[in-house]
Amino acid sequence: MYELALVGVGSANPDHLTRQAIRALGAADLVLIPHKGSEKADLAALRQRLLATLFDTPPPARLFEMPVRRGEDPDYRASVDDWHDAVAARWRESLAAALPEGGRIALMIWGDPSLYDSSLRIAERLRAAGLPLAVTVVPGLTSLQLLTAAHAIPLNDLAAPVLITTGRRLAGGWPEGADRVAVMLDGGCAFQTLDPAGIRIWWGAYLGMVEEIRDAGPLAAAGPRILATRAAARARHGWIMDVYLLARSR
Amino acid sequence: MYELALVGVGSANPDHLTRQAIRALGAADLVLIPHKGSEKADLAALRQRLLATLFDTPPPARLFEMPVRRGEDPDYRASVDDWHDAVAARWRESLAAALPEGGRIALMIWGDPSLYDSSLRIAERLRAAGLPLAVTVVPGLTSLQLLTAAHAIPLNDLAAPVLITTGRRLAGGWPEGADRVAVMLDGGCAFQTLDPAGIRIWWGAYLGMVEEIRDAGPLAAAGPRILATRAAARARHGWIMDVYLLARSR
Repeated sequence: MYELALVGVGSANPDHLTRQAIRALGAADLVLIPHKGSEKADLAALRQRLLATLFDTPPPARLFEMPVRRGEDPDYRASVDDWHDAVAARWRESLAAALPEGGRIALMIWGDPSLYDSSLRIAERLRAAGLPLAVTVVPGLTSLQLLTAAHAIPLNDLAAPVLITTGRRLAGGWPEGADRVAVMLDGGCAFQTLDPAGIRIWWGAYLGMVEEIRDAGPLAAAGPRILATRAAARARHGWIMDVYLLARSR
Repeated sequence: MYELALVGVGSANPDHLTRQAIRALGAADLVLIPHKGSEKADLAALRQRLLATLFDTPPPARLFEMPVRRGEDPDYRASVDDWHDAVAARWRESLAAALPEGGRIALMIWGDPSLYDSSLRIAERLRAAGLPLAVTVVPGLTSLQLLTAAHAIPLNDLAAPVLITTGRRLAGGWPEGADRVAVMLDGGCAFQTLDPAGIRIWWGAYLGMVEEIRDAGPLAAAGPRILATRAAARARHGWIMDVYLLARSR
């Protein structure tokens, strides 16, 4: 029997972890750490550093090579499905090699396991394939919470709804349903496809890290500034993670 | 000069606090605790117990009487505005009495200060009135995160948007913009106003507390069950806090 804890770690800033998250990591027989050989961000090293910071004697950790999703596949769903299958196979190989008799496994999840993360779906594949697996979720701070905290702003307008969506969706125009829209997974700065009149943006990158940068203002003025800041930061660090909130006044 | 830290404490379960939140509370010269004389939930006692659990020597705390909002006011915005004014006045009185020379104040915010919480707007009133006040936000786990963690489910469907809204809004029908809708601030179980066909619900009350209860399933079957469970729990405890996620399949 395997017990898998999906542990939200925010941006891997140790001060952003909850006591519950720290305990779940410390109790693991094995912490699985995804690794991409080609990755400039070296998030595997960040996760390993987090364990070393939190514990005098860190739990055993094991890197596994993260499969790469076919980015250019015209069938987005199919490419994601295949990718989840491939990740599930890697998890299974790691468990068979390191914990053949079962045990407690932990995965450090960027942000919170509930928001734009695939781990729950990947774990479900292992269960469907017959692996005896009990999954628990330990929540962590999302990048949206780090964004609103950094700007000291509410996510929602008074008693009003908020839509959380992706850059891919925003590129189709201002979505229906809300005058405030939080945008994640946007590598292409989809905000530049909008008519900026009446829109305000709050943006942040590397939130919760020493590299944190942010900007805010009317989209007409702040948008071009953010594009330039983002391109420069990405060139300097070799990678970027960012998120933003838009508000439309009517 | 006053430094005000709005500290997200989730559901006041000490294991859900981040290290940053614990440090911000511990560093306060004064922790302001809202108190409602008539309140059955006795959230003031929960907050005081949290401080007693976290610290051998808790920071100084001071209760202030929380004004009551006119619930039946037909002009919702005006009644909330008046209520924020009244709360701001109470904060100001407390600061003048306990910290006339300035200092570090902390407020323990249920969930996260960014989501359906008024503290940022109330602090803005004090600043606008000339009080020298620097506000920092320390994020905390929201009830939505506790809900998705308890059910071990993602908030969003694969690469799809999620709308966060209120019971008041949901009562107007399924909102545009998303097939997943998270509903907060719903004392009236607005889900029962929807045609349940094709809708699934995940519900939770007292999340993160010892009293935690949850239910899930197709809305047609789970809805009536949740209404009964909720009424019984509310009668037993004298109060309830709950939240839910709806998913529509098309």
